[in-house]
Amino acid sequence: SFSRGMQTVTLIPGDGIGPEISTAVMKIFETANAPIKWEERNVTAIKGPGGKWMIPLDAKESMNKNKMGLKGPLKTPIAAGHPSMNLLLRKTFDLYANVRPCVSIEGYKTPYTDVNLVTIRENTEGEYSGIEHTIVDGVVQSIKLITEEASRRIAEYAFEYARNNQRASVTAVHKANIMRMSDGLFLRKCREVAEGYKDIKFTEMYLDTVCLNMVQDPTQFDVLVMPNLYGDILSDLCAGLIGGLGVTPSGNIGANGVAIFESVHGTAPDIAGLDMANPTALLLSAVMMLRHMGLHPYADKIQTACFDTIKDMKVLTKDLGGNSKCSEFTGEICRRIQDMD
Amino acid sequence: SFSRGMQTVTLIPGDGIGPEISTAVMKIFETANAPIKWEERNVTAIKGPGGKWMIPLDAKESMNKNKMGLKGPLKTPIAAGHPSMNLLLRKTFDLYANVRPCVSIEGYKTPYTDVNLVTIRENTEGEYSGIEHTIVDGVVQSIKLITEEASRRIAEYAFEYARNNQRASVTAVHKANIMRMSDGLFLRKCREVAEGYKDIKFTEMYLDTVCLNMVQDPTQFDVLVMPNLYGDILSDLCAGLIGGLGVTPSGNIGANGVAIFESVHGTAPDIAGLDMANPTALLLSAVMMLRHMGLHPYADKIQTACFDTIKDMKVLTKDLGGNSKCSEFTGEICRRIQDMD
Ligand SMILES: CC(C)[C@H](C(=O)O)[C@@H](O)C(=O)O
Ligand SMILES: CC(C)[C@H](C(=O)O)[C@@H](O)C(=O)O
Repeated sequence: SFSRGMQTVTLIPGDGIGPEISTAVMKIFETANAPIKWEERNVTAIKGPGGKWMIPLDAKESMNKNKMGLKGPLKTPIAAGHPSMNLLLRKTFDLYANVRPCVSIEGYKTPYTDVNLVTIRENTEGEYSGIEHTIVDGVVQSIKLITEEASRRIAEYAFEYARNNQRASVTAVHKANIMRMSDGLFLRKCREVAEGYKDIKFTEMYLDTVCLNMVQDPTQFDVLVMPNLYGDILSDLCAGLIGGLGVTPSGNIGANGVAIFESVHGTAPDIAGLDMANPTALLLSAVMMLRHMGLHPYADKIQTACFDTIKDMKVLTKDLGGNSKCSEFTGEICRRIQDMD
Repeated sequence: SFSRGMQTVTLIPGDGIGPEISTAVMKIFETANAPIKWEERNVTAIKGPGGKWMIPLDAKESMNKNKMGLKGPLKTPIAAGHPSMNLLLRKTFDLYANVRPCVSIEGYKTPYTDVNLVTIRENTEGEYSGIEHTIVDGVVQSIKLITEEASRRIAEYAFEYARNNQRASVTAVHKANIMRMSDGLFLRKCREVAEGYKDIKFTEMYLDTVCLNMVQDPTQFDVLVMPNLYGDILSDLCAGLIGGLGVTPSGNIGANGVAIFESVHGTAPDIAGLDMANPTALLLSAVMMLRHMGLHPYADKIQTACFDTIKDMKVLTKDLGGNSKCSEFTGEICRRIQDMD
């Protein structure tokens, strides 16, 4: 029957253009007969007992039950003391690996071609520890926290990812020449884990060198693994190489099979509700999710329809260089999916 | 007389290709009649009383006397516990501002044209504090130290630089959304200083956003000011946009008129002594030094001869795409300088 093997995914449409692009993704998934049932949840932060900011309980329960989530953009709260919802989600579900494949898109011109790399960012500690102090007036310290456990875990994730995705090499990105103990620990764990993956080439590079080489020739890179802040930087840099956050998918992977896939662009309040948004990043994140769930045929079909639409250059949203509405771009992808059957 | 107004500069030729490219710079300066007398010093680290690594005394004295230095590449010591000489120099002379103009070079093809920006990096604290601890087995912390004083000082330097170099805007680069106290303090000082420079536009941007926008369109940036590690990353990224460290000059500016200009590429031991090295980065650093000393006519003359040589594409070193030797490239620059008179 139709519902055989249906899996439920928590859908967090998000703010601004979030609902529109979520609708686009749902329509495309339905057209492709992807065996996904959506459970929509809102994650506006609420204040829990003791004044701690929390994810709303029903969203949390939904995620804990389904283990799989798709998320649109969330607005960054302005109120002081209010944490970033993105950070709160990572923390709440211990989403320790942020994975961003950056692959050049045919038809979308950038200064680079043939980019095909993946950044894997440690998502729970490092400079994001949130621990800061004023030592004396005018002297502040922030703590970068690196643990053996989190470093080993992310290194293992990177090598497993490389192996499962037919990738040839993993590069650990660090500044252990400066942060000898913290980045040193991270690097040591990468080296140790590398020992167990003789089929994958392992290299180490300084972050500054990676940035320099990246803009000179990104095709030399494959899988890159790194501490939190370096990943924040490199993943955005690499997104820039292929066309920006509007076309770059992202996945946050946790323990016990929990994962949230998300578009990492903003909420674009200026065009919200105007049927002008580009759903590509959320769609490709949803495609990443399908692969993560082992549903490769659906992933391939949707991805092909999306890339062919962009390559064709006839029905594109404004940010992609066209004049079409979000619904028209979505319709074109659906049309191509139907043509495949 | 010839020596009227001669100023003495401490020359640290450095390791590997350092001596060759230093010789090239001296030859070009002599040809241009630049009023500079060189005082050569070696800065191989020595162990002082109590086992602390130090700059050799005669190098230190020379710098303290001349206040102005030009430095080639120094090899990174391998022995554990031996600090980077570059870091030791910054520390010894309190060189608090690292300045790197990144300007597209005509004739040297990269994916970008019309890049014309300057990164100004806080050079003394932040993630480079060197303070690290093991909390418990497998848990390490590194301290990022941000002070009001160093933040105000670098912000003031950036705005002064912008004003003195006819630059229109200064952008503070930060992650104050994550490191609210430390980057928050840095940002607050930038805002305060900006108040005093109503002629210069001030903007603030997240580091990740800067990286993304930088690779999409670097021409939107002008002067960028940031904490230490962000500067390490961005300055290398920007060097990559214009052709790499072989063509990018750098200056380290301290208090009381002390400054060291340096090429930031490596020692290239594989080609050392073979007359194959490219002296451009050291030469352009020396040109930066001339401007810093107010010797603009000499700076203009040498810079024009260097850029014309590259634009002409006939006499180029191997890394620049040619077949010429370091001495031939140097000779061509000298010939052009002589032709100007
Ligand atoms: C929104 C913000 C807190 C976040 C970060 O700094 O990690 C963002 O830049 C990202 O990369 O997901
Ligand atoms: C050599 C190294 C210590 C240094 C740094 O990390 O600052 C280098 O990358 C630089 O930018 O000067």
